[in-house]
Amino acid sequence: MYQQYFQAAVAASRKLSQLNPATISLVLNDVAQGLIGHAEQIIAANRRDLERMDLKDAKYDRLILDEARLQGMADDCKKIAGMNSPLGEIIYSNTLDNALDLSKVRVPLGVVGVIYEARPNVTVDVFALCFKTGNVAVLKGGSDAEFSNIALMNVIKGVLKNHNIDENAAVLLPAEREATVALLNARGLVDVLIPRGSQALIDYVRENSKIPVIETGAGIVHTYFDSSGDSMKAREIIFNAKTRRVSVCNALDCLLVHADRLADLPLITGRLAEKEVEIYADQLSFAALKNAYPEELLFEARAEDYGIEFLDYKMSIKTVHHIDEALEHIARYSSGHSEAIIAEDIETQLVFLNAVDAAAVYTNASTAFTDGGQFGLGAEIGISTQKLHARGPMGLEELTSYKWLIRGNGQVR
Amino acid sequence: MYQQYFQAAVAASRKLSQLNPATISLVLNDVAQGLIGHAEQIIAANRRDLERMDLKDAKYDRLILDEARLQGMADDCKKIAGMNSPLGEIIYSNTLDNALDLSKVRVPLGVVGVIYEARPNVTVDVFALCFKTGNVAVLKGGSDAEFSNIALMNVIKGVLKNHNIDENAAVLLPAEREATVALLNARGLVDVLIPRGSQALIDYVRENSKIPVIETGAGIVHTYFDSSGDSMKAREIIFNAKTRRVSVCNALDCLLVHADRLADLPLITGRLAEKEVEIYADQLSFAALKNAYPEELLFEARAEDYGIEFLDYKMSIKTVHHIDEALEHIARYSSGHSEAIIAEDIETQLVFLNAVDAAAVYTNASTAFTDGGQFGLGAEIGISTQKLHARGPMGLEELTSYKWLIRGNGQVR
Repeated sequence: MYQQYFQAAVAASRKLSQLNPATISLVLNDVAQGLIGHAEQIIAANRRDLERMDLKDAKYDRLILDEARLQGMADDCKKIAGMNSPLGEIIYSNTLDNALDLSKVRVPLGVVGVIYEARPNVTVDVFALCFKTGNVAVLKGGSDAEFSNIALMNVIKGVLKNHNIDENAAVLLPAEREATVALLNARGLVDVLIPRGSQALIDYVRENSKIPVIETGAGIVHTYFDSSGDSMKAREIIFNAKTRRVSVCNALDCLLVHADRLADLPLITGRLAEKEVEIYADQLSFAALKNAYPEELLFEARAEDYGIEFLDYKMSIKTVHHIDEALEHIARYSSGHSEAIIAEDIETQLVFLNAVDAAAVYTNASTAFTDGGQFGLGAEIGISTQKLHARGPMGLEELTSYKWLIRGNGQVR
Repeated sequence: MYQQYFQAAVAASRKLSQLNPATISLVLNDVAQGLIGHAEQIIAANRRDLERMDLKDAKYDRLILDEARLQGMADDCKKIAGMNSPLGEIIYSNTLDNALDLSKVRVPLGVVGVIYEARPNVTVDVFALCFKTGNVAVLKGGSDAEFSNIALMNVIKGVLKNHNIDENAAVLLPAEREATVALLNARGLVDVLIPRGSQALIDYVRENSKIPVIETGAGIVHTYFDSSGDSMKAREIIFNAKTRRVSVCNALDCLLVHADRLADLPLITGRLAEKEVEIYADQLSFAALKNAYPEELLFEARAEDYGIEFLDYKMSIKTVHHIDEALEHIARYSSGHSEAIIAEDIETQLVFLNAVDAAAVYTNASTAFTDGGQFGLGAEIGISTQKLHARGPMGLEELTSYKWLIRGNGQVR
């Protein structure tokens, strides 16, 4: 019974790939306007969702839509509308010896499935990114946000209709769980799945999907303070990477410190107490911090304090005696998201940049920069922690594929 | 018990990523020499495999290794050795407003698993492509080729040892089926799986893998002869696309012919009788060919003759009344591999190039050109029919990923 949604998406995708970029931008600007114009209905629908949710639920805040948030969503739509379209870009071209004219041209992926949780802003965000890149978004939002998502989708569908575009250029699946199962199995109809949300959601999608999945998420992030490191830089970088926003994937989880610089640890970690960050320290670093860091925030690290994404005001520290030991630790525990070194020695920086296998590898900067906006991609659909197709922040280009066009004049092989 | 193989591969992969391109080329040239130098042992091992196989087995010919084939394998190794390495290529770089220096650099994928069948040449071919791109190949060959694969791998390991490179830079799994199952589940250790072989093998790997899979293979290939088509060009193109090699994925399966040009069908299909190609024709095209094409080779098409990869001297024909009908047919039955139009009208060509969603889309040329060598990639690990990561012929670049390097001087966000 869900097949009709996917088939409609495929049919719409064929037409969508023929739209010109100017029309696409017009539609996105109209959606931005529509969100503001229909603010009252959207907020009323959102209220129905909110009424069903316990005020103490951690998802409550994320579910709220108010005028400010709608304005933010509209602004994002306009921003995406104004960006250059990657579609049609000629990535490579060549004329072969036999006079065949060969080119590699950027095209939409086709139908992009996105499974997400209670944040209704994702509905508009994903639609805008997918539509901009000629893709049909098949959206499976959380049931908590059902009324909000329907209201937002009504605005989108209204605009599509005004432009005589197939309304199935954006598909919102019914909120029930069975729709998720159907989506995971829509092989041959949906080209790629992107789960957005908790690690449990991502794991579930990866384990059960029959469709290629782009994994986003989990950042188990390290920063290594080398024997050549500048402790004042480290102080600011560690503070920023750990406390700027603890709930995001680029937040620092573990500080690796060279044994020769344990005496600098009180200075380096000094600002963390401002935010009451709990520190889980190994024996040597614990001793170095014992009379310097607030006693009630300092704990002896257990094995399980390494290789964990805290998503909280918590950080572990491990002492290493050589950069190789830091690299070993990172290779073992990193989730391949963001890793940094603080070092003044250029050779050491290069060793680190070269050896660490992660989406983003830093020298002397806060890992908080791992973000599509910060990297200049303009917009971001997620941060990939896998190596196929896209790695790190994914912008418009990462929502495209390519095809080879070969123009001949009767050539045979 | 197979985990040790994968863990050894991961450890070797970390070292391999630090090798310089010159050493990599030296190793590949030495492997080429080693294949010739150890021809006697390899051929003896191959004989043991051949003795176990029924002479009438379709795989028998593919299993044979003789001096000519070894020379071919050695030549391929040398060719790959001589190619430019994609590693370290800076794909993008930028200095941000905050003076962060950002670059996107090409790196190996890491550990590449390849599951294949009885062709022992794949062992050397895949090793060479993976090693060139800094990847550890974890090879799972067919049990039919067990002794041959071990002999080939001994040559490779010997060369690695001579160069003081971790021997696990190439891993041959035991021939038993359990090893395949372990490989499909080696999540977190193996970065990508590439199945090479029959559709059944590819389907099995896709269905059961917990690791990202790059699908290669199945080509259900169409060529559309438009009302503006040149029938003499069509005659040669159709003959070439159908009969050059029927067992390959780019071979033509179905000719779509515009109703206005049915009278040209005898000319267009004329050369196919030379190779005794069986034609499965719809009513109109059957009537057009009735007294022109050999009666014993002409059949009325059944529904199941469309959307099938024949891999044989067989071809179906369908009459269409408009290019849209051709596009519909292709959208429904294509496997997204190679599709062609024969048309002189430029507008019609553009419509076709734009609308068809396949890895390779042709005008006025034989689909037999869909091949890494023909496209100028130098070497090919397969032809991807999926849209993520790589599409169409995959060369060295498609065996790489990238990472973002961010160099700072104390920047915080």
